[in-house]
Amino acid sequence: MPREITAFSNPLIKRVRNLRDKRHRREEGLFLAEGLRILTEASEAGRIPDYLFFARDMANHPLVRALVEATEAAGGEAIETNADILSKLSGKDNPGAVVGVYPEFALGLADLDPGTAPIWLVAERLRDPGNLGTILRTGDAVGAGGLILLDECVDPFSVEAVRASMGALFTVPVAKASWAEFVPWLRNGPGQLVGLSLDTEYDYKAGEYQAPTFLLTGNEAQGMPDFMAQECDLLVKIPMLGKADSLNAAVATAVMAYEVLSRIRDA
Amino acid sequence: MPREITAFSNPLIKRVRNLRDKRHRREEGLFLAEGLRILTEASEAGRIPDYLFFARDMANHPLVRALVEATEAAGGEAIETNADILSKLSGKDNPGAVVGVYPEFALGLADLDPGTAPIWLVAERLRDPGNLGTILRTGDAVGAGGLILLDECVDPFSVEAVRASMGALFTVPVAKASWAEFVPWLRNGPGQLVGLSLDTEYDYKAGEYQAPTFLLTGNEAQGMPDFMAQECDLLVKIPMLGKADSLNAAVATAVMAYEVLSRIRDA
Repeated sequence: MPREITAFSNPLIKRVRNLRDKRHRREEGLFLAEGLRILTEASEAGRIPDYLFFARDMANHPLVRALVEATEAAGGEAIETNADILSKLSGKDNPGAVVGVYPEFALGLADLDPGTAPIWLVAERLRDPGNLGTILRTGDAVGAGGLILLDECVDPFSVEAVRASMGALFTVPVAKASWAEFVPWLRNGPGQLVGLSLDTEYDYKAGEYQAPTFLLTGNEAQGMPDFMAQECDLLVKIPMLGKADSLNAAVATAVMAYEVLSRIRDA
Repeated sequence: MPREITAFSNPLIKRVRNLRDKRHRREEGLFLAEGLRILTEASEAGRIPDYLFFARDMANHPLVRALVEATEAAGGEAIETNADILSKLSGKDNPGAVVGVYPEFALGLADLDPGTAPIWLVAERLRDPGNLGTILRTGDAVGAGGLILLDECVDPFSVEAVRASMGALFTVPVAKASWAEFVPWLRNGPGQLVGLSLDTEYDYKAGEYQAPTFLLTGNEAQGMPDFMAQECDLLVKIPMLGKADSLNAAVATAVMAYEVLSRIRDA
């Protein structure tokens, strides 16, 4: 039976609110996700929250009831609350019906099997949480085996990244690794490393892509460093016809990923 | 000779700071842009600020000097200030060297000539300023004739949209129109209307695209309404291989735009 919390001063509310800060996420090993659709997708992927907050006036919605049951069955706690508290937890003026608190999860490279997917996304020093979430969402759409975050990337468990992923954080494996770990792992298995670069004349449409292709996207402002570009089996460029010299990192990743997907499927 | 402002209480600082709100932008007809690269791109596109704020310790940077000269030559005012004020104006902890205050500009459909570009971007009820800016940035990259904003879209002059556009707001024409204005304008000229839809089985790779193609992207959450879909000459779908049923709107627009561009160039 869910307990009810409606006081802002409740210690659990304060604790959950603090998960919007990276430091508290690290200390607690927990993160926030919000919205009926995203939490339902998480549940279908086997991710059940430790705490589920739901709006009292949505308590009878079938998806809310399913989430409450799944949470309690897994030993978590379902907590009835109101829109003001949900707004405080989610940081949105118009909060969804549910907010979930999940244990963080992160895979290592050893958990990934390159042969299981035709395409993998790799990002290095990604800085923008919205870009990270959007790349995860694209990864889901192209059937990527996972997203590998190299060196110091933004936190995939930040509220902004989770929100932009639209649930893909729960369905696309995310692994963190250093470049020094990544290269031997990559070279010990099948697959080509394809880098998006501004310093090549090689058009992305002219590339030959074989499964599995590892698609490497560099830092938003600087692109990838030379030593990474030199390790790539192929460097390709997306044509830029205007004044700007680059695309948004999540956009460039998606344009490339769909081209690779299409070419591998046609092969 | 630039005057110097270093007091937060200065009325001009307050007035400029207020331009972060849509209501004040409407009242003043002015908007904010920041960063040396974006302001320089604006200047090259013939857009000179009414007010240019620059960091004192960057005063001798050649691009800053060029902006100061261009501003004063055009009858605007260049104002020397410090990082704290620039941070307050831009809303960023690490502000760039310059913030510019520009007069808003907006084209109508009558200012656009469909025959001058192979591809045009059209968005209806776009809600996210980051998406709008990113679509403009993509529009620049694919050589789009412009971005047409249908019905109630988010403000292209918001700080977030300008920032995400990375300067493309100054190089890609933006027009606002109602659907009722758009259709007769479109049908009075050359060009096909291609809609991105989840309700078709027609793969975007199978489409035949002729210049000029008008690429219509629907609202982030709802897609486009039926009456718009029915007006499209072609509805196409980007394949979704995962759990999610849609891509980010700016990502979907870019994947489509590059496909159209490639097909038109190969034709």
